Amino acid sequence: MNKSPIGIFDSGIGGLTVVKAIQAALPFERILYFGDTARVPYGTKSQVTVRKYAADDTAMLMRYQPKIIIVACNTVSALALDVVEKSCGHLPVTGVLKAGARLAAGVTRNKRIGVIGTQATVSSNAYGLAINQLNAEIEVFSQACPLFVPLAEEGFIDHPATKLVAAEYLSEIMQKGIDTLVLGCTHYPILRKVIEETVGPEITIIDSADAVALGTKELLMESGLLAFTQTESTPHLLVSDLPQKFSTLYQLFMGSAMPDVELVEV
Amino acid sequence: MNKSPIGIFDSGIGGLTVVKAIQAALPFERILYFGDTARVPYGTKSQVTVRKYAADDTAMLMRYQPKIIIVACNTVSALALDVVEKSCGHLPVTGVLKAGARLAAGVTRNKRIGVIGTQATVSSNAYGLAINQLNAEIEVFSQACPLFVPLAEEGFIDHPATKLVAAEYLSEIMQKGIDTLVLGCTHYPILRKVIEETVGPEITIIDSADAVALGTKELLMESGLLAFTQTESTPHLLVSDLPQKFSTLYQLFMGSAMPDVELVEV
Repeated sequence: MNKSPIGIFDSGIGGLTVVKAIQAALPFERILYFGDTARVPYGTKSQVTVRKYAADDTAMLMRYQPKIIIVACNTVSALALDVVEKSCGHLPVTGVLKAGARLAAGVTRNKRIGVIGTQATVSSNAYGLAINQLNAEIEVFSQACPLFVPLAEEGFIDHPATKLVAAEYLSEIMQKGIDTLVLGCTHYPILRKVIEETVGPEITIIDSADAVALGTKELLMESGLLAFTQTESTPHLLVSDLPQKFSTLYQLFMGSAMPDVELVEV
Repeated sequence: MNKSPIGIFDSGIGGLTVVKAIQAALPFERILYFGDTARVPYGTKSQVTVRKYAADDTAMLMRYQPKIIIVACNTVSALALDVVEKSCGHLPVTGVLKAGARLAAGVTRNKRIGVIGTQATVSSNAYGLAINQLNAEIEVFSQACPLFVPLAEEGFIDHPATKLVAAEYLSEIMQKGIDTLVLGCTHYPILRKVIEETVGPEITIIDSADAVALGTKELLMESGLLAFTQTESTPHLLVSDLPQKFSTLYQLFMGSAMPDVELVEV
Protein backbone atom coordinates (compact mmCIF):
# COMPACT_ATOMS: atom_id res chain seq x y z
CA MET A 1 0.00 0.00 0.00
CA ASN A 2 2.84 2.38 0.86
CA LYS A 3 4.19 1.97 -2.67
CA SER A 4 0.82 2.69 -4.29
CA PRO A 5 0.66 6.04 -6.07
CA ILE A 6 -0.76 9.29 -4.78
CA GLY A 7 -3.70 9.95 -7.11
CA ILE A 8 -4.24 13.58 -8.08
CA PHE A 9 -6.85 14.98 -10.45
CA ASP A 10 -7.81 18.34 -11.88
CA SER A 11 -10.10 19.73 -14.56
CA GLY A 12 -7.05 20.24 -16.75
CA ILE A 13 -3.41 21.07 -16.30
CA GLY A 14 -3.66 23.63 -13.45
CA GLY A 15 -3.29 20.81 -10.94
CA LEU A 16 0.29 20.36 -12.09
CA THR A 17 1.12 23.12 -9.59
CA VAL A 18 0.00 20.59 -6.95
CA VAL A 19 2.13 17.84 -8.53
CA LYS A 20 5.14 20.13 -8.29
CA ALA A 21 4.44 20.94 -4.63
CA ILE A 22 3.90 17.24 -3.78
CA GLN A 23 7.17 16.31 -5.51
CA ALA A 24 9.00 18.88 -3.40
CA ALA A 25 7.36 17.84 -0.12
CA LEU A 26 7.28 14.07 -0.75
CA PRO A 27 10.13 13.14 -3.11
CA PHE A 28 9.82 9.36 -2.54
CA GLU A 29 6.17 9.10 -3.62
CA ARG A 30 4.86 7.78 -6.94
CA ILE A 31 2.43 10.27 -8.47
CA LEU A 32 -0.51 9.49 -10.74
CA TYR A 33 -2.17 12.56 -12.28
CA PHE A 34 -5.37 12.81 -14.30
CA GLY A 35 -6.28 16.04 -16.11
CA ASP A 36 -9.72 16.17 -17.75
CA THR A 37 -8.42 18.27 -20.63
CA ALA A 38 -11.30 17.19 -22.92
CA ARG A 39 -13.85 18.98 -20.72
CA VAL A 40 -11.78 21.76 -19.12
CA PRO A 41 -12.65 24.27 -17.66
CA TYR A 42 -14.95 23.32 -14.76
CA GLY A 43 -15.03 26.73 -13.06
CA THR A 44 -17.52 28.25 -15.49
CA LYS A 45 -19.91 25.27 -15.35
CA SER A 46 -22.86 24.37 -13.13
CA GLN A 47 -22.71 22.41 -9.88
CA VAL A 48 -24.63 19.49 -11.46
CA THR A 49 -22.06 19.13 -14.25
CA VAL A 50 -19.05 19.60 -11.94
CA ARG A 51 -20.38 16.83 -9.63
CA LYS A 52 -20.87 14.45 -12.57
CA TYR A 53 -17.33 15.14 -13.82
CA ALA A 54 -15.90 14.70 -10.29
CA ALA A 55 -17.36 11.17 -10.12
CA ASP A 56 -15.86 10.32 -13.54
CA ASP A 57 -12.45 11.69 -12.56
CA THR A 58 -12.38 9.72 -9.30
CA ALA A 59 -13.36 6.52 -11.15
CA MET A 60 -10.49 7.14 -13.58
CA LEU A 61 -7.93 7.35 -10.74
CA MET A 62 -9.44 4.32 -8.95
CA ARG A 63 -8.47 2.08 -11.89
CA TYR A 64 -4.85 2.58 -10.83
CA GLN A 65 -5.40 1.76 -7.12
CA PRO A 66 -4.04 4.90 -5.48
CA LYS A 67 -3.45 5.04 -1.71
CA ILE A 68 -4.88 8.56 -1.37
CA ILE A 69 -6.78 10.96 -3.60
CA ILE A 70 -5.92 14.63 -3.82
CA VAL A 71 -8.47 16.91 -5.45
CA ALA A 72 -6.20 19.46 -7.12
CA CYS A 73 -9.18 21.34 -8.57
CA ASN A 74 -10.57 24.10 -6.37
CA THR A 75 -13.92 24.00 -8.17
CA VAL A 76 -14.36 20.27 -7.43
CA SER A 77 -13.07 20.80 -3.87
CA ALA A 78 -15.73 23.48 -3.42
CA LEU A 79 -18.70 21.80 -5.13
CA ALA A 80 -18.13 18.04 -5.08
CA LEU A 81 -15.67 16.81 -2.42
CA ASP A 82 -18.44 14.55 -1.02
CA VAL A 83 -18.89 12.99 -4.48
CA VAL A 84 -15.18 12.12 -4.55
CA GLU A 85 -15.35 10.66 -1.01
CA LYS A 86 -18.35 8.50 -1.95
CA SER A 87 -16.73 7.32 -5.20
CA CYS A 88 -13.47 6.04 -3.69
CA GLY A 89 -14.52 3.71 -0.89
CA HIS A 90 -12.42 4.11 2.22
CA LEU A 91 -9.45 5.92 0.74
CA PRO A 92 -8.30 9.12 2.40
CA VAL A 93 -9.27 12.19 0.36
CA THR A 94 -7.87 15.67 0.61
CA GLY A 95 -8.50 18.75 -1.45
CA VAL A 96 -6.86 22.08 -2.13
CA LEU A 97 -9.74 23.99 -0.58
CA LYS A 98 -9.63 22.55 2.94
CA ALA A 99 -5.83 22.76 2.97
CA GLY A 100 -5.83 26.36 1.75
CA ALA A 101 -8.55 27.34 4.23
CA ARG A 102 -6.63 25.80 7.14
CA LEU A 103 -3.36 27.51 6.24
CA ALA A 104 -5.09 30.88 5.72
CA ALA A 105 -6.96 30.64 9.03
CA GLY A 106 -3.65 29.96 10.79
CA VAL A 107 -1.82 32.82 9.12
CA THR A 108 -4.23 35.77 9.38
CA ARG A 109 -3.61 38.18 12.26
CA ASN A 110 -6.46 40.64 11.73
CA LYS A 111 -9.01 37.91 10.89
CA ARG A 112 -9.80 39.33 7.45
CA ILE A 113 -9.07 36.94 4.56
CA GLY A 114 -9.54 37.44 0.83
CA VAL A 115 -10.18 34.53 -1.53
CA ILE A 116 -9.94 34.63 -5.33
CA GLY A 117 -11.09 31.78 -7.59
CA THR A 118 -13.33 30.70 -10.44
CA GLN A 119 -16.97 31.80 -10.71
CA ALA A 120 -18.16 28.39 -9.47
CA THR A 121 -15.78 28.32 -6.48
CA VAL A 122 -16.64 31.87 -5.41
CA SER A 123 -20.40 31.40 -5.86
CA SER A 124 -20.31 28.28 -3.69
CA ASN A 125 -18.85 30.26 -0.75
CA ALA A 126 -17.05 27.03 0.15
CA TYR A 127 -13.88 28.83 1.29
CA GLY A 128 -15.91 31.08 3.58
CA LEU A 129 -17.67 28.07 5.11
CA ALA A 130 -14.43 26.09 5.54
CA ILE A 131 -12.60 29.02 7.14
CA ASN A 132 -15.51 29.82 9.46
CA GLN A 133 -15.68 26.19 10.58
CA LEU A 134 -12.12 26.66 11.84
CA ASN A 135 -12.71 30.12 13.29
CA ALA A 136 -16.14 31.74 13.22
CA GLU A 137 -14.67 35.20 13.89
CA ILE A 138 -12.79 35.42 10.59
CA GLU A 139 -14.38 37.54 7.89
CA VAL A 140 -13.93 36.21 4.34
CA PHE A 141 -14.20 38.35 1.21
CA SER A 142 -14.15 36.66 -2.18
CA GLN A 143 -13.83 37.66 -5.81
CA ALA A 144 -14.17 35.62 -9.00
CA CYS A 145 -11.34 36.25 -11.50
CA PRO A 146 -12.47 34.41 -14.68
CA LEU A 147 -9.79 35.91 -16.93
CA PHE A 148 -6.84 34.77 -14.79
CA VAL A 149 -6.98 31.18 -16.14
CA PRO A 150 -6.90 32.13 -19.84
CA LEU A 151 -4.28 34.84 -19.19
CA ALA A 152 -2.06 32.29 -17.41
CA GLU A 153 -2.56 29.70 -20.17
CA GLU A 154 -1.74 32.29 -22.83
CA GLY A 155 1.54 32.95 -21.01
CA PHE A 156 0.62 36.60 -20.28
CA ILE A 157 2.53 36.24 -17.00
CA ASP A 158 3.78 39.79 -16.70
CA HIS A 159 1.77 41.48 -19.45
CA PRO A 160 0.31 45.01 -19.09
CA ALA A 161 -3.15 43.57 -19.91
CA THR A 162 -2.82 41.12 -17.01
CA LYS A 163 -1.86 44.00 -14.70
CA LEU A 164 -4.95 45.97 -15.78
CA VAL A 165 -7.22 42.97 -15.25
CA ALA A 166 -5.65 42.21 -11.85
CA ALA A 167 -6.06 45.83 -10.73
CA GLU A 168 -9.75 45.72 -11.66
CA TYR A 169 -10.51 42.32 -10.11
CA LEU A 170 -8.63 43.00 -6.88
CA SER A 171 -9.59 46.64 -6.22
CA GLU A 172 -12.73 45.89 -4.18
CA ILE A 173 -11.26 43.09 -2.10
CA MET A 174 -8.23 45.31 -1.34
CA GLN A 175 -10.50 47.88 0.31
CA LYS A 176 -11.67 45.32 2.87
CA GLY A 177 -8.48 45.53 4.93
CA ILE A 178 -7.51 41.89 4.40
CA ASP A 179 -4.07 40.71 5.55
CA THR A 180 -4.19 37.31 3.77
CA LEU A 181 -5.17 36.37 0.21
CA VAL A 182 -5.87 32.78 -0.85
CA LEU A 183 -5.09 31.83 -4.45
CA GLY A 184 -8.18 29.63 -4.76
CA CYS A 185 -7.47 28.25 -8.22
CA THR A 186 -4.48 26.13 -9.23
CA HIS A 187 -3.71 28.38 -12.21
CA TYR A 188 -3.25 31.51 -10.14
CA PRO A 189 0.28 30.74 -8.82
CA ILE A 190 1.41 31.26 -12.44
CA LEU A 191 0.29 34.91 -12.07
CA ARG A 192 1.61 35.23 -8.52
CA LYS A 193 4.07 38.03 -9.34
CA VAL A 194 1.38 40.31 -10.84
CA ILE A 195 -1.02 39.49 -8.00
CA GLU A 196 1.65 40.27 -5.39
CA GLU A 197 2.53 43.57 -7.07
CA THR A 198 -1.16 44.51 -7.20
CA VAL A 199 -1.98 43.77 -3.56
CA GLY A 200 1.33 44.94 -2.10
CA PRO A 201 3.83 43.38 0.32
CA GLU A 202 1.66 43.65 3.47
CA ILE A 203 -0.66 40.88 2.34
CA THR A 204 0.35 37.23 2.79
CA ILE A 205 -0.41 35.14 -0.29
CA ILE A 206 -1.60 31.57 0.36
CA ASP A 207 -0.89 29.10 -2.44
CA SER A 208 -3.29 26.19 -1.97
CA ALA A 209 -0.89 23.87 -3.85
CA ASP A 210 1.74 24.27 -1.12
CA ALA A 211 -0.96 23.95 1.53
CA VAL A 212 -2.30 20.66 0.16
CA ALA A 213 1.22 19.22 -0.12
CA LEU A 214 1.81 19.88 3.58
CA GLY A 215 -1.62 18.42 4.44
CA THR A 216 -0.95 15.31 2.36
CA LYS A 217 2.36 14.68 4.09
CA GLU A 218 0.65 14.82 7.50
CA LEU A 219 -2.18 12.56 6.32
CA LEU A 220 0.21 9.94 4.93
CA MET A 221 2.29 9.99 8.13
CA GLU A 222 -0.81 9.61 10.33
CA SER A 223 -2.10 6.75 8.16
CA GLY A 224 1.30 5.00 8.00
CA LEU A 225 1.21 5.27 4.20
CA LEU A 226 4.45 7.15 3.50
CA ALA A 227 6.82 5.69 0.90
CA PHE A 228 10.42 5.41 2.06
CA THR A 229 12.32 4.56 -1.10
CA GLN A 230 12.28 6.32 -4.41
CA THR A 231 10.50 4.27 -7.08
CA GLU A 232 9.90 6.63 -10.00
CA SER A 233 11.02 10.13 -10.66
CA THR A 234 8.45 11.29 -13.21
CA PRO A 235 4.70 11.44 -12.56
CA HIS A 236 2.38 9.12 -14.50
CA LEU A 237 0.24 11.53 -16.50
CA LEU A 238 -3.25 10.73 -17.84
CA VAL A 239 -5.25 13.22 -19.89
CA SER A 240 -8.62 13.03 -21.68
CA ASP A 241 -7.39 15.23 -24.54
CA LEU A 242 -3.95 16.09 -25.86
CA PRO A 243 -4.26 19.51 -27.49
CA GLN A 244 -1.53 21.13 -29.51
CA LYS A 245 -0.46 23.50 -26.74
CA PHE A 246 -0.15 20.79 -24.07
CA SER A 247 3.63 20.56 -23.99
CA THR A 248 3.98 24.37 -23.84
CA LEU A 249 1.57 24.47 -20.91
CA TYR A 250 3.33 21.59 -19.16
CA GLN A 251 6.58 23.52 -19.43
CA LEU A 252 4.86 26.65 -18.05
CA PHE A 253 3.45 24.85 -15.01
CA MET A 254 6.26 22.39 -14.25
CA GLY A 255 9.31 24.23 -15.53
CA SER A 256 10.55 21.03 -17.18
CA ALA A 257 10.03 19.18 -20.48
CA MET A 258 6.88 17.08 -20.80
CA PRO A 259 7.31 13.34 -20.13
CA ASP A 260 5.19 10.65 -21.86
CA VAL A 261 1.47 11.25 -21.45
CA GLU A 262 -1.29 8.64 -21.65
CA LEU A 263 -4.51 9.59 -23.46
CA VAL A 264 -7.59 8.10 -21.77
CA GLU A 265 -11.34 8.32 -22.45
CA VAL A 266 -13.76 9.55 -19.77
CA MET B 1 -40.35 19.42 -44.49
CA ASN B 2 -40.52 23.19 -45.08
CA LYS B 3 -41.88 23.60 -41.56
CA SER B 4 -39.08 21.55 -39.99
CA PRO B 5 -36.60 23.58 -37.97
CA ILE B 6 -33.23 24.85 -39.04
CA GLY B 7 -30.80 22.98 -36.76
CA ILE B 8 -27.83 25.00 -35.51
CA PHE B 9 -25.10 23.88 -33.14
CA ASP B 10 -22.06 25.36 -31.50
CA SER B 11 -19.57 24.44 -28.78
CA GLY B 12 -21.35 26.85 -26.46
CA ILE B 13 -23.24 30.09 -26.72
CA GLY B 14 -21.12 31.87 -29.37
CA GLY B 15 -23.33 30.41 -32.09
CA LEU B 16 -26.16 32.62 -30.86
CA THR B 17 -24.63 35.30 -33.11
CA VAL B 18 -25.61 32.95 -35.97
CA VAL B 19 -29.12 32.51 -34.55
CA LYS B 20 -29.51 36.27 -34.51
CA ALA B 21 -28.31 36.60 -38.12
CA ILE B 22 -30.61 33.76 -39.27
CA GLN B 23 -33.59 35.35 -37.53
CA ALA B 24 -32.89 38.60 -39.35
CA ALA B 25 -32.42 36.95 -42.77
CA LEU B 26 -35.14 34.27 -42.43
CA PRO B 27 -37.83 35.53 -40.05
CA PHE B 28 -40.35 32.75 -40.92
CA GLU B 29 -38.09 29.86 -39.97
CA ARG B 30 -38.25 27.75 -36.82
CA ILE B 31 -34.82 27.57 -35.17
CA LEU B 32 -33.44 24.72 -33.07
CA TYR B 33 -30.13 25.50 -31.35
CA PHE B 34 -27.83 23.19 -29.42
CA GLY B 35 -24.92 24.60 -27.40
CA ASP B 36 -22.52 22.06 -25.86
CA THR B 37 -21.99 24.22 -22.78
CA ALA B 38 -20.87 21.22 -20.68
CA ARG B 39 -17.75 20.75 -22.82
CA VAL B 40 -17.10 24.27 -24.15
CA PRO B 41 -14.61 25.47 -25.43
CA TYR B 42 -13.63 23.36 -28.46
CA GLY B 43 -11.06 25.77 -29.90
CA THR B 44 -8.32 24.80 -27.44
CA LYS B 45 -8.85 21.05 -27.88
CA SER B 46 -7.40 18.46 -30.26
CA GLN B 47 -8.81 17.46 -33.64
CA VAL B 48 -9.67 13.95 -32.35
CA THR B 49 -11.78 15.38 -29.53
CA VAL B 50 -13.43 18.05 -31.69
CA ARG B 51 -14.46 15.37 -34.25
CA LYS B 52 -15.95 13.18 -31.51
CA TYR B 53 -17.92 16.11 -30.11
CA ALA B 54 -19.11 17.12 -33.61
CA ALA B 55 -20.66 13.67 -34.10
CA ASP B 56 -22.42 13.92 -30.71
CA ASP B 57 -23.74 17.40 -31.47
CA THR B 58 -25.10 16.35 -34.87
CA ALA B 59 -26.82 13.32 -33.31
CA MET B 60 -28.41 15.64 -30.75
CA LEU B 61 -29.93 17.86 -33.47
CA MET B 62 -31.03 14.84 -35.55
CA ARG B 63 -33.43 13.78 -32.76
CA TYR B 64 -35.51 16.85 -33.67
CA GLN B 65 -35.61 16.15 -37.45
CA PRO B 66 -34.19 19.42 -38.78
CA LYS B 67 -34.36 20.24 -42.51
CA ILE B 68 -30.80 21.61 -42.62
CA ILE B 69 -27.84 21.70 -40.28
CA ILE B 70 -25.76 24.82 -39.74
CA VAL B 71 -22.42 24.39 -38.03
CA ALA B 72 -22.17 27.66 -36.09
CA CYS B 73 -18.82 26.67 -34.60
CA ASN B 74 -15.79 27.71 -36.61
CA THR B 75 -13.62 25.07 -34.94
CA VAL B 76 -16.01 22.26 -35.99
CA SER B 77 -16.39 23.84 -39.45
CA ALA B 78 -12.61 23.75 -39.78
CA LEU B 79 -11.85 20.33 -38.30
CA ALA B 80 -14.96 18.18 -38.62
CA LEU B 81 -17.45 19.32 -41.29
CA ASP B 82 -17.13 15.88 -42.94
CA VAL B 83 -18.09 14.22 -39.63
CA VAL B 84 -21.27 16.32 -39.50
CA GLU B 85 -22.09 15.47 -43.14
CA LYS B 86 -21.63 11.74 -42.48
CA SER B 87 -23.72 11.87 -39.29
CA CYS B 88 -26.83 13.48 -40.78
CA GLY B 89 -27.69 11.34 -43.78
CA HIS B 90 -28.76 13.36 -46.79
CA LEU B 91 -29.51 16.65 -45.07
CA PRO B 92 -27.92 19.80 -46.45
CA VAL B 93 -25.10 21.02 -44.20
CA THR B 94 -23.52 24.45 -44.15
CA GLY B 95 -20.91 25.93 -41.88
CA VAL B 96 -19.65 29.34 -40.87
CA LEU B 97 -16.23 28.68 -42.36
CA LYS B 98 -17.23 28.05 -45.98
CA ALA B 99 -19.68 30.96 -45.87
CA GLY B 100 -17.10 33.33 -44.39
CA ALA B 101 -14.44 32.20 -46.85
CA ARG B 102 -16.78 32.76 -49.82
CA LEU B 103 -17.81 36.23 -48.67
CA ALA B 104 -14.19 37.25 -47.97
CA ALA B 105 -12.97 35.98 -51.36
CA GLY B 106 -15.68 38.05 -53.03
CA VAL B 107 -14.91 41.21 -51.08
CA THR B 108 -11.09 41.48 -51.20
CA ARG B 109 -9.67 43.80 -53.85
CA ASN B 110 -5.94 43.36 -53.24
CA LYS B 111 -6.21 39.58 -52.68
CA ARG B 112 -4.77 39.71 -49.18
CA ILE B 113 -7.10 38.40 -46.47
CA GLY B 114 -6.54 38.10 -42.73
CA VAL B 115 -8.31 35.49 -40.61
CA ILE B 116 -8.51 35.44 -36.81
CA GLY B 117 -9.88 32.49 -34.83
CA THR B 118 -9.22 29.89 -32.14
CA GLN B 119 -5.95 27.98 -31.90
CA ALA B 120 -7.57 24.87 -33.43
CA THR B 121 -9.14 26.79 -36.35
CA VAL B 122 -5.95 28.66 -37.17
CA SER B 123 -3.71 25.58 -36.86
CA SER B 124 -5.96 23.68 -39.29
CA ASN B 125 -5.43 26.33 -42.00
CA ALA B 126 -8.99 25.50 -43.09
CA TYR B 127 -9.82 29.12 -43.99
CA GLY B 128 -6.71 29.34 -46.16
CA LEU B 129 -7.63 26.14 -47.97
CA ALA B 130 -11.29 27.17 -48.46
CA ILE B 131 -10.34 30.62 -49.76
CA ASN B 132 -7.69 29.23 -52.11
CA GLN B 133 -10.18 26.71 -53.52
CA LEU B 134 -12.24 29.72 -54.61
CA ASN B 135 -9.26 31.76 -55.80
CA ALA B 136 -5.73 30.37 -55.73
CA GLU B 137 -4.21 33.84 -56.08
CA ILE B 138 -5.44 35.11 -52.72
CA GLU B 139 -2.90 35.20 -49.90
CA VAL B 140 -4.31 34.35 -46.46
CA PHE B 141 -2.67 35.37 -43.17
CA SER B 142 -4.05 34.00 -39.94
CA GLN B 143 -3.67 34.63 -36.23
CA ALA B 144 -5.03 32.75 -33.21
CA CYS B 145 -6.59 35.05 -30.59
CA PRO B 146 -7.26 32.74 -27.60
CA LEU B 147 -8.08 35.54 -25.14
CA PHE B 148 -10.87 37.06 -27.26
CA VAL B 149 -13.43 34.41 -26.21
CA PRO B 150 -12.92 34.83 -22.44
CA LEU B 151 -12.71 38.64 -22.80
CA ALA B 152 -16.04 38.65 -24.69
CA GLU B 153 -17.67 36.31 -22.16
CA GLU B 154 -16.43 38.47 -19.28
CA GLY B 155 -18.12 41.46 -20.95
CA PHE B 156 -14.82 43.32 -21.42
CA ILE B 157 -16.28 44.70 -24.66
CA ASP B 158 -14.56 48.06 -24.63
CA HIS B 159 -12.04 47.55 -21.83
CA PRO B 160 -8.47 48.93 -21.96
CA ALA B 161 -7.17 45.36 -21.37
CA THR B 162 -9.08 44.16 -24.44
CA LYS B 163 -7.56 46.99 -26.49
CA LEU B 164 -4.04 46.00 -25.37
CA VAL B 165 -4.66 42.34 -26.19
CA ALA B 166 -6.18 43.23 -29.58
CA ALA B 167 -3.22 45.49 -30.44
CA GLU B 168 -0.82 42.65 -29.64
CA TYR B 169 -2.70 39.90 -31.47
CA LEU B 170 -3.39 41.99 -34.59
CA SER B 171 -0.06 43.80 -35.00
CA GLU B 172 1.63 41.16 -37.16
CA ILE B 173 -1.36 40.48 -39.42
CA MET B 174 -1.79 44.25 -39.91
CA GLN B 175 1.68 44.47 -41.41
CA LYS B 176 0.72 42.09 -44.21
CA GLY B 177 -1.24 44.70 -46.15
CA ILE B 178 -4.59 42.88 -45.86
CA ASP B 179 -7.76 44.68 -46.98
CA THR B 180 -10.21 42.14 -45.49
CA LEU B 181 -10.34 40.51 -42.04
CA VAL B 182 -12.51 37.47 -41.29
CA LEU B 183 -13.84 37.11 -37.74
CA GLY B 184 -13.34 33.34 -37.72
CA CYS B 185 -14.95 32.67 -34.34
CA THR B 186 -18.57 33.31 -33.40
CA HIS B 187 -17.58 35.17 -30.25
CA TYR B 188 -15.55 37.80 -32.05
CA PRO B 189 -18.47 39.94 -33.31
CA ILE B 190 -19.00 40.85 -29.61
CA LEU B 191 -15.56 42.55 -29.74
CA ARG B 192 -16.10 43.99 -33.23
CA LYS B 193 -15.79 47.63 -32.11
CA VAL B 194 -12.34 47.12 -30.53
CA ILE B 195 -11.19 45.03 -33.49
CA GLU B 196 -12.37 47.70 -35.95
CA GLU B 197 -10.64 50.46 -33.99
CA THR B 198 -7.44 48.40 -33.90
CA VAL B 199 -7.27 47.57 -37.62
CA GLY B 200 -8.64 50.92 -38.86
CA PRO B 201 -11.40 51.84 -41.32
CA GLU B 202 -9.63 50.69 -44.51
CA ILE B 203 -10.07 47.03 -43.66
CA THR B 204 -13.40 45.31 -44.38
CA ILE B 205 -14.52 43.10 -41.49
CA ILE B 206 -16.27 39.84 -42.45
CA ASP B 207 -18.66 38.46 -39.83
CA SER B 208 -19.10 34.76 -40.59
CA ALA B 209 -22.50 34.79 -38.84
CA ASP B 210 -23.92 37.18 -41.45
CA ALA B 211 -22.21 35.18 -44.19
CA VAL B 212 -23.74 31.87 -43.14
CA ALA B 213 -27.21 33.42 -42.85
CA LEU B 214 -27.00 34.57 -46.48
CA GLY B 215 -25.69 31.16 -47.56
CA THR B 216 -28.47 29.36 -45.70
CA LYS B 217 -31.13 31.47 -47.38
CA GLU B 218 -29.75 30.57 -50.80
CA LEU B 219 -29.47 26.89 -49.90
CA LEU B 220 -33.08 26.73 -48.64
CA MET B 221 -34.35 28.52 -51.77
CA GLU B 222 -32.43 26.17 -54.08
CA SER B 223 -33.71 23.12 -52.19
CA GLY B 224 -37.31 24.39 -52.04
CA LEU B 225 -37.20 24.21 -48.26
CA LEU B 226 -38.06 27.80 -47.30
CA ALA B 227 -40.83 28.34 -44.74
CA PHE B 228 -43.50 30.84 -45.82
CA THR B 229 -45.52 31.38 -42.68
CA GLN B 230 -44.35 32.31 -39.24
CA THR B 231 -44.70 29.43 -36.79
CA GLU B 232 -42.65 30.37 -33.71
CA SER B 233 -40.87 33.53 -32.78
CA THR B 234 -38.38 32.28 -30.21
CA PRO B 235 -35.68 29.70 -30.94
CA HIS B 236 -35.83 26.28 -29.26
CA LEU B 237 -32.67 26.21 -27.14
CA LEU B 238 -30.92 23.04 -25.99
CA VAL B 239 -27.80 23.12 -23.81
CA SER B 240 -25.69 20.42 -22.14
CA ASP B 241 -25.04 22.61 -19.09
CA LEU B 242 -26.79 25.59 -17.59
CA PRO B 243 -24.15 27.58 -15.71
CA GLN B 244 -24.93 30.51 -13.49
CA LYS B 245 -23.85 33.11 -16.04
CA PHE B 246 -25.92 31.68 -18.89
CA SER B 247 -28.69 34.28 -18.87
CA THR B 248 -26.16 37.16 -18.72
CA LEU B 249 -24.33 35.68 -21.71
CA TYR B 250 -27.58 35.12 -23.60
CA GLN B 251 -28.41 38.80 -23.09
CA LEU B 252 -24.90 39.79 -24.27
CA PHE B 253 -25.15 37.75 -27.49
CA MET B 254 -28.83 38.18 -28.35
CA GLY B 255 -29.62 41.57 -26.82
CA SER B 256 -32.87 40.15 -25.38
CA ALA B 257 -33.98 38.26 -22.28
CA MET B 258 -33.36 34.50 -22.20
CA PRO B 259 -36.34 32.33 -23.17
CA ASP B 260 -36.91 28.80 -21.72
CA VAL B 261 -33.91 26.55 -22.20
CA GLU B 262 -33.91 22.74 -22.29
CA LEU B 263 -31.08 20.91 -20.51
CA VAL B 264 -29.98 17.78 -22.40
CA GLU B 265 -27.28 15.16 -21.84
CA VAL B 266 -24.62 14.43 -24.48
